[in-house]
Amino acid sequence: MHTVRFSDPSGLTRTGTWTDSGIDAGNQRYDPAEVTILPPSEPTKIVCQAGGYVDHREESGFEDLPDRPELFLKTPNCVVGHGDAIELPPGRDEVEFEAEFGIVIDEQCRAVDEDEAMEFVRGFTCVNDISNRDDQAEERNWVRGKAFDASLPIGPVLATPDEVPDDARLELRLNGEVKQETTRDMMIFSVPNLIAEVSELITLEPGDVIASGTPFGPGPLGEGDVVEVEFEGVGTLENHVVAR
Amino acid sequence: MHTVRFSDPSGLTRTGTWTDSGIDAGNQRYDPAEVTILPPSEPTKIVCQAGGYVDHREESGFEDLPDRPELFLKTPNCVVGHGDAIELPPGRDEVEFEAEFGIVIDEQCRAVDEDEAMEFVRGFTCVNDISNRDDQAEERNWVRGKAFDASLPIGPVLATPDEVPDDARLELRLNGEVKQETTRDMMIFSVPNLIAEVSELITLEPGDVIASGTPFGPGPLGEGDVVEVEFEGVGTLENHVVAR
Repeated sequence: MHTVRFSDPSGLTRTGTWTDSGIDAGNQRYDPAEVTILPPSEPTKIVCQAGGYVDHREESGFEDLPDRPELFLKTPNCVVGHGDAIELPPGRDEVEFEAEFGIVIDEQCRAVDEDEAMEFVRGFTCVNDISNRDDQAEERNWVRGKAFDASLPIGPVLATPDEVPDDARLELRLNGEVKQETTRDMMIFSVPNLIAEVSELITLEPGDVIASGTPFGPGPLGEGDVVEVEFEGVGTLENHVVAR
Repeated sequence: MHTVRFSDPSGLTRTGTWTDSGIDAGNQRYDPAEVTILPPSEPTKIVCQAGGYVDHREESGFEDLPDRPELFLKTPNCVVGHGDAIELPPGRDEVEFEAEFGIVIDEQCRAVDEDEAMEFVRGFTCVNDISNRDDQAEERNWVRGKAFDASLPIGPVLATPDEVPDDARLELRLNGEVKQETTRDMMIFSVPNLIAEVSELITLEPGDVIASGTPFGPGPLGEGDVVEVEFEGVGTLENHVVAR
């Protein structure tokens, strides 16, 4: 099932089911083109993984595999939805896309065992971890470099785990050209691993997002670009880039 | 004025004014000993400064002053109030206190000019930036090391800026013994500097907290310890340490 949050033509926020026939919410059917798609959850925090794929670790200069996921944080001001603008932070020249697989939490949880972790998953979504390398290169903690406004498009829907094959394909297209591609089974840590690792010390809340890291090939974004993240079984998250 | 959020004896959350006579909320007066003090705000994010005082930079091995504040993030799961427990994260041996001066934001703002920054301040509070050095020492981004549950006691009140002198004294006591002391004028960056720097790329929301860094002398916490952060003009934030 694909769940979507949207703003209906009267401006009300609704949650519905998105199928080939349209979006069903309550006893009404909406044309997806006539509603505003909202981010599929409202996270209190976003815990991101750095270096979650072997190939991106290699291009970043790391030779060994990590013992545990390396984490960093994004915040609610980062979150935008499908169709929203990615704003280039002013005065920065190196803003890049990073296609990622997102895990959305369903219930408050802490110190979750790997074998119970899937019980706490509401669904999967597409994530674009927009990164400002100008600041990231200068920071110990990536705050200006990663947690700036509108730096985390997520969506368009939440897909239940049964919709997403273990080897689901992830692809990022910039102005229609494929720039990143991998499959889910190339992730170093599994979804249950990530939930267990993050929740060991950090309580996860309903709607919180774990972004699982990007594969090989992040690259630059400029004003006017259209960037799409497609995850097999989830759908395509599309955003356009504007100057702020 | 000192504003306090609390849970009254019937369990309702109220906001009142705390004076020597007690806590006034609506047309009632409460005995502070008979209510539960809550964190003075509910931040969507906490932006923290690392190395905000000259003396702590020196003890951490940095020789030069920074060009701009170095930032890291905490998240809502970190926040606890006056009187709440600080839980030691399991399996970690080096958990430390860090007394800090906290700035609480009043209105949504972005790209704030320094000379207008004080208009966006709701008040000042005491902060204890509890840090787990076991993980912090191994992480690029301090997530397990800084953003674990109950790692950010704040409170007990919000003091309006007129209550807090420019050279207000900050003191941390562990089991009654003074462990950190400084004055507000020893901060490298001023409150308006910090708000301008953080808000350049990051929208601040009502209730968000900027924690302005710790002076010389962070040190270890153990089970059963009582730790107090006192900021002149604000009051004393007291917490006790428990095993999780």
